[in-house]
Amino acid sequence: MEVNLPPEMDPDVKADILAREKAYSQELQKGGEWKNIWRCAGQYSNLSIFDVDSNDRLHEILWNLPLFPYMRMEITPLAQHPSDIALLDS
Amino acid sequence: MEVNLPPEMDPDVKADILAREKAYSQELQKGGEWKNIWRCAGQYSNLSIFDVDSNDRLHEILWNLPLFPYMRMEITPLAQHPSDIALLDS
Amino acid sequence: MEVNLPPEMDPDVKADILAREKAYSQELQKGGEWKNIWRCAGQYSNLSIFDVDSNDRLHEILWNLPLFPYMRMEITPLAQHPSDIALLDS
Amino acid sequence: MEVNLPPEMDPDVKADILAREKAYSQELQKGGEWKNIWRCAGQYSNLSIFDVDSNDRLHEILWNLPLFPYMRMEITPLAQHPSDIALLDS
Amino acid sequence: MEVNLPPEMDPDVKADILAREKAYSQELQKGGEWKNIWRCAGQYSNLSIFDVDSNDRLHEILWNLPLFPYMRMEITPLAQHPSDIALLDS
Amino acid sequence: MEVNLPPEMDPDVKADILAREKAYSQELQKGGEWKNIWRCAGQYSNLSIFDVDSNDRLHEILWNLPLFPYMRMEITPLAQHPSDIALLDS
Amino acid sequence: MEVNLPPEMDPDVKADILAREKAYSQELQKGGEWKNIWRCAGQYSNLSIFDVDSNDRLHEILWNLPLFPYMRMEITPLAQHPSDIALLDS
Amino acid sequence: MEVNLPPEMDPDVKADILAREKAYSQELQKGGEWKNIWRCAGQYSNLSIFDVDSNDRLHEILWNLPLFPYMRMEITPLAQHPSDIALLDS
Amino acid sequence: MEVNLPPEMDPDVKADILAREKAYSQELQKGGEWKNIWRCAGQYSNLSIFDVDSNDRLHEILWNLPLFPYMRMEITPLAQHPSDIALLDS
Amino acid sequence: MEVNLPPEMDPDVKADILAREKAYSQELQKGGEWKNIWRCAGQYSNLSIFDVDSNDRLHEILWNLPLFPYMRMEITPLAQHPSDIALLDS
Repeated sequence: MEVNLPPEMDPDVKADILAREKAYSQELQKGGEWKNIWRCAGQYSNLSIFDVDSNDRLHEILWNLPLFPYMRMEITPLAQHPSDIALLDS
Repeated sequence: MEVNLPPEMDPDVKADILAREKAYSQELQKGGEWKNIWRCAGQYSNLSIFDVDSNDRLHEILWNLPLFPYMRMEITPLAQHPSDIALLDS
Repeated sequence: MEVNLPPEMDPDVKADILAREKAYSQELQKGGEWKNIWRCAGQYSNLSIFDVDSNDRLHEILWNLPLFPYMRMEITPLAQHPSDIALLDS
Repeated sequence: MEVNLPPEMDPDVKADILAREKAYSQELQKGGEWKNIWRCAGQYSNLSIFDVDSNDRLHEILWNLPLFPYMRMEITPLAQHPSDIALLDS
Repeated sequence: MEVNLPPEMDPDVKADILAREKAYSQELQKGGEWKNIWRCAGQYSNLSIFDVDSNDRLHEILWNLPLFPYMRMEITPLAQHPSDIALLDS
Repeated sequence: MEVNLPPEMDPDVKADILAREKAYSQELQKGGEWKNIWRCAGQYSNLSIFDVDSNDRLHEILWNLPLFPYMRMEITPLAQHPSDIALLDS
Repeated sequence: MEVNLPPEMDPDVKADILAREKAYSQELQKGGEWKNIWRCAGQYSNLSIFDVDSNDRLHEILWNLPLFPYMRMEITPLAQHPSDIALLDS
Repeated sequence: MEVNLPPEMDPDVKADILAREKAYSQELQKGGEWKNIWRCAGQYSNLSIFDVDSNDRLHEILWNLPLFPYMRMEITPLAQHPSDIALLDS
Repeated sequence: MEVNLPPEMDPDVKADILAREKAYSQELQKGGEWKNIWRCAGQYSNLSIFDVDSNDRLHEILWNLPLFPYMRMEITPLAQHPSDIALLDS
Repeated sequence: MEVNLPPEMDPDVKADILAREKAYSQELQKGGEWKNIWRCAGQYSNLSIFDVDSNDRLHEILWNLPLFPYMRMEITPLAQHPSDIALLDS
């Protein structure tokens, strides 16, 4: 997810949208669907891992991001990897 | 990490290299430096997260992958994200 | 899904692999998971729509394609579109 | 079809154009020329399948989309695939 | 259409395939479906215009090109342009 | 030639520039230098064939297009193809 | 790091931001974390080498660049090269 | 060097900047450092050859182009070619 | 023009083809059609300027390069630039 | 500089070429023309800084790299940056 906010954006509008984005993200992290979020160093972008039941739910989450209109994202569907040690536990 | 094995590769050579790759990956996962590995659905490639002390250590790990000569990879340095709920715990 | 068979491939090997690919695809079409397949005009590639329960199942289907080692593919996760008239029926 | 609406667009103008887009799409879906529409998860874009008599008709449909001036699209001409089970019925 | 023949190809095989390609192209040109062919200067590639009834027919023509296994092509569906003076004659 | 008119353009300015573009194109088509023009289906762009005496003349024609400041174009120099049946007539 | 300042930017605002950028860069150069900076000839961009303790520190430095909102950058993590003569000294 | 002037630019400002650009270029051509300039047919861009003493001098020339803020350029460092007939004269 | 010779090429075959390439290039340079040739520093490629009567002649020259089967090239049609001081002399 | 050695290369040939590459690089580092070399983490490639008198010398150095036939490289001409603190010392 890459964010592109226009430099001339009103500071109050910007502060509000960023606060809502953070609250929204943390709520989903607490709920377990947004498993990880990392900042890509030197970029206004992040790498996130989602664990959701369907593509419809994934789209609903992303579409409602307060920053969605300012973002570009790439989605890579992930599956279990046969070398994952989580498979050894079962 | 994208793997590109030639289709005409000797089956025994292939089986050996894949077994060594799996053992190598699982050892590093157990040691905690290779934090996650997912299969990219429909691709012979994976998305992995590493937690290492330095770029030198990261390179050492990747360079010694048994499949390294057959791989192409992109590295994205990750930092803590200010919205990460892990920051709320401290 | 783009297929890249080496022109010098043995004709019998090629005929066998193509026959297995066709049978495999048609079995999955009949089962309902492989919903559509179209030939991209002028290309040795196709556009296919899958309806599966999970990314794991999608990967299992694609990984076992007889032509998988000769293919490159791009996966786009699809969700319901709010303008889809199927939504009007319910 | 990828949509790129400027974030500062007037809300009423936006609501009007989106309502007209939806009505236009559903009319063509009911008429059978716009066979499928899916939302690409996490994107403001869709994947659509058209079944039309000619390139001229395809262009007429797309050119008249209310959102056309805000869209970028790629067109892939599709043909029947020899593995399509629809061929088995005849 | 871009041609990529391996430099080490047997000269007789190459001469035969090129002769068949030329005959095939000229037959379709005479029949009116292959309307134009130009050489892209300095490239082993051509720009061609086809006038066919359907995508299925277009694919059939291209798939049967003797050089098809050595080619990469891009297809752009063309429609009538409103500024075309052919429209003035009617 | 791909046209990119800003959606907020004044309708009268737009109508005027499009009328001048059409007249300019048709004059050159009648003169024989602008041999063909097709609409790329689903795009605000065209594929055109020019038959001119020099690169200088080609540039003069394109530079004076009323829509030139709103266009991006790619130029591919074309030569006679040895399979062109026009060569059989002479 | 590529800079893209809008040509219509207010000259005073521009002079201020550039002065702050220069002071910020030189302070970090003196501190040893910003090891090198070169201008890419003919570009409004630079190539810089950083020597920092972590990705978090790297991101903090870059995020606080006065020109950050106007920049695009690519980050390449660097490790020691086995042919580096610095290794001969130890 | 590709020029991208906004279509809505004030005509007087534009005429002034273009006149200064032309004078600047011709002065450097007469001085011998700007050896060649060609217009890329159908583009608002040029291909130029410079013969300068250093990268610093090259950057100084390009940075001071009146159109520099509106340009994108690619720089290819050139060396003597062993087949150049200029080498035969010495 | 970028050259890509396989590293395992027979040294005598390579020496012969390179000698023929050089002779061919120098003959055309002396004849005035191949106006300039530069080596792109650090690449096995060159930048060349041709002055020919037609695209057909340009293609004939390039197609007959001894290294043509090992080359990839991009052609940019060039026209006179209005700032060229050669225009001042007439 | 990105290295691409075929996996099936003879181990002795490979060891010899790598030893010669290392000696060649270190000699130029000691001579001061090859100022820096870093390994790009996770890649078989390096980032190097050269300080040479001319493009001709740069090309001579790179062309004679033992690994040159197996490499792809991008060259970015660098100039002094106005924020470089080296400028403060003089």
